[in-house]
Amino acid sequence: MTGVLYGVGLGPGASDLITLRAARLIENAAVVAYPALAGADSFARAIAADLIPHGAREIVMDVPMTTDRAPAQAAYDAGAAEIAAALDAGEDVVCLCEGDPFFYGSFMYLFARLSARFKVEVVPGVTSVTACAARAGLPLAARNERLTVLPGPLPEDELRSRIEGAESVVIMKVGRHLAKIRAIIDALGHTEAAVYVERATLADEVVCPLAQAPEKAPYFSMILLTKGTDPWL
Amino acid sequence: MTGVLYGVGLGPGASDLITLRAARLIENAAVVAYPALAGADSFARAIAADLIPHGAREIVMDVPMTTDRAPAQAAYDAGAAEIAAALDAGEDVVCLCEGDPFFYGSFMYLFARLSARFKVEVVPGVTSVTACAARAGLPLAARNERLTVLPGPLPEDELRSRIEGAESVVIMKVGRHLAKIRAIIDALGHTEAAVYVERATLADEVVCPLAQAPEKAPYFSMILLTKGTDPWL
Repeated sequence: MTGVLYGVGLGPGASDLITLRAARLIENAAVVAYPALAGADSFARAIAADLIPHGAREIVMDVPMTTDRAPAQAAYDAGAAEIAAALDAGEDVVCLCEGDPFFYGSFMYLFARLSARFKVEVVPGVTSVTACAARAGLPLAARNERLTVLPGPLPEDELRSRIEGAESVVIMKVGRHLAKIRAIIDALGHTEAAVYVERATLADEVVCPLAQAPEKAPYFSMILLTKGTDPWL
Repeated sequence: MTGVLYGVGLGPGASDLITLRAARLIENAAVVAYPALAGADSFARAIAADLIPHGAREIVMDVPMTTDRAPAQAAYDAGAAEIAAALDAGEDVVCLCEGDPFFYGSFMYLFARLSARFKVEVVPGVTSVTACAARAGLPLAARNERLTVLPGPLPEDELRSRIEGAESVVIMKVGRHLAKIRAIIDALGHTEAAVYVERATLADEVVCPLAQAPEKAPYFSMILLTKGTDPWL
């Protein structure tokens, strides 16, 4: 009997935004796996730390964040091979994923490598999108409204035209693209409506109007452009 | 001391996809509030049923689903007044919301009515979007990809042009708009890639290629148009 690979969403960061299902899987895990990005401590492991059993085996994937994809692909190849060995030996593996595994999550690289050979169960998690909206007090979309999720690294022209054609907009992965994004939103006249959120639900969270955002944004930062509360009366 | 209003996301339907924070709030609630749509039993209450304390007071908002918005607005006005009375009396109120409160959730109508007068805390939940992707085994977006969320009731021309201009697409609230949406996706040549999901994570869940979708779709149904798994290798 081969084991089952669980891709478990952990939510945006606060450890009590983990789901009951994810918590139960982690508490009973004999083998956990997770990525650690660019030499830093694993954010996924930190979210779930209090739930990981003492003595669980931990498979760490050290994923470099480079524009060249080959080193990251090699890291996922190696991680997938180690996970496959555990599954082949009949062990279940619980893979920890920030947010949701299929929403800009690194788990999809493991899923692509392993889902044809092994049983995989994905446990969805709270995304940073709704977590940021909750912390900012900004409804995202209702009724027949559209919601567009855009990654901040997109080229300037594309980002501008996508924002222009959208209704509610969420810009992810702001990080070092903050100045570019801010200039676009300014040029479109949307700065007053834009809200900046950094490290949502964590102790050092920042929520402020975009005009007051810090000069330097971390990778886990987001800009929300919504209609605000009034239309829902 | 006035009470605090908690808008609590319950996730897509399975009761163990509730977050630890939401579960703790519900288990300790003296007053819970929730909508019941169009005379049916409340889906939100059903998700949380095992967690609601015996003896908790329940504020039910009977929300008619009509194209005329006035009756629903009146229901939220009445619900907000009853909740406000509890908050004014110093009681906390836990409002139960399917999915996420700020993502096509009815809680935003209460938030708009009460957030200026009372302290409101929104607890984000797992949305049906990532739940459907998890159940369908379909990664939604990674790297610099865009994700577009479209409500099925949009007019045919708009829906078509929005799908054409998008990358990964999620169509919500399919329901009685299934035939229209299917025709658009057929005309665009995307039927082979499209997956239909109904009542994700519940016992009577349906996941199938769009071509095999039933004639009649319930309100809680979705169509996913994504790239599949191969690009993530």
